[in-house]
Amino acid sequence: MLPFYNLENSIAVIIDIFRATSSICYGIHNGAKAIIPVSTIVECLSFSGNGSLLAAERDGKVVDGFDFGNSPFSYTVEKVKDKTVVLTTTNGTRAIQLSQDAKKVVIGSFLNISSLCDWLDQQEDSVVLVCAGWKANFSLEDALFAGAVVEKLQDTFSIHDDGAVAALDLYKCAKSDLPKYLEKSSHSERLKNLNIGKDVAFCLQFDVLDTIPVYEEGRLVKMER
Amino acid sequence: MLPFYNLENSIAVIIDIFRATSSICYGIHNGAKAIIPVSTIVECLSFSGNGSLLAAERDGKVVDGFDFGNSPFSYTVEKVKDKTVVLTTTNGTRAIQLSQDAKKVVIGSFLNISSLCDWLDQQEDSVVLVCAGWKANFSLEDALFAGAVVEKLQDTFSIHDDGAVAALDLYKCAKSDLPKYLEKSSHSERLKNLNIGKDVAFCLQFDVLDTIPVYEEGRLVKMER
Repeated sequence: MLPFYNLENSIAVIIDIFRATSSICYGIHNGAKAIIPVSTIVECLSFSGNGSLLAAERDGKVVDGFDFGNSPFSYTVEKVKDKTVVLTTTNGTRAIQLSQDAKKVVIGSFLNISSLCDWLDQQEDSVVLVCAGWKANFSLEDALFAGAVVEKLQDTFSIHDDGAVAALDLYKCAKSDLPKYLEKSSHSERLKNLNIGKDVAFCLQFDVLDTIPVYEEGRLVKMER
Repeated sequence: MLPFYNLENSIAVIIDIFRATSSICYGIHNGAKAIIPVSTIVECLSFSGNGSLLAAERDGKVVDGFDFGNSPFSYTVEKVKDKTVVLTTTNGTRAIQLSQDAKKVVIGSFLNISSLCDWLDQQEDSVVLVCAGWKANFSLEDALFAGAVVEKLQDTFSIHDDGAVAALDLYKCAKSDLPKYLEKSSHSERLKNLNIGKDVAFCLQFDVLDTIPVYEEGRLVKMER
């Protein structure tokens, strides 16, 4: 859907809750110098030997031979502090690259939602919420996060998109118990099969950090505010 | 998004509530021999002179020089009985053509929803609900119709898609007063500017007809049951 939006004068918020954007927020908060999103495994491998950590996820699993994938527990202080991580994921990386025309590209997750929304509130540009989805399909958890952002911003922004209206109402249906609501999600079923319930629970925590990763010259770095 | 679904063994239900699929249901019910969906205005014009009615809508308006567009009030018995209509619309036609790999392609609208769902209930194939949207973006009224279909079919079908889960919950938010809920829709705003409130009200009527249009050899015709 993204190609149909005009992003040029907008801030794009990239959303891939399970798990890419949650892990990016956590990794940058934990002192990673930068996270470099790349599209392909080959591109990721081309960074080997220069001291970067190589992270590759496909279909929810770490690709054989890589340091790690996109589990948030791979982005702890011990693992990423002062390191550069080169990351390729199924959906999140693609969403970042589709958004390159935006005035600014930032990374959203429940982990940093209030800091992100406070910052967005201070900007004068339009905001486009880019739900990465799963292999380009609609993803419930990403829509719910978008709805949570719309709820926080609705008094200062006007809503120009049916997707935002729908996301807000969905979030209202779900917010009293997000984990329970998400049990209906096809992604949740898939994640359960991958045995990463701990990751899912981690990614559904609100406001455990105040870092906003921003995309600059091909790298995700900590926004200086 | 559609290209990511495997349609081969599925029934595709095409949904473009405001107004293409509502008008197609009404026109076929009112005795049109066939409605031929085509992509371009040029293709539509190529049918001129053989007795067909030519219908072309772009950006919600009848294209200059055409018999009519996609207002349901152009598809009355007086206008379409025993006629073939060649129709090109902004979104609906494209959705039909993207769905050509499906085992069967049928047309849905609130006007025929119960007949459609009764028929779907008797089939053994998967059902893919194809929301045409507006220029490939999410459209609230199409999602609500999808939710209404999911509500009717949920006891006999299993749900394999987050979009269906979300559509169902949205429909539950909206169903007590669909017209009021849709006032939040960006499309509703656009339609108001086009001065077609009567069309919108018409398209939100449940079960005023029992015809199911089906796509056969490039033409939409009445399904024989």
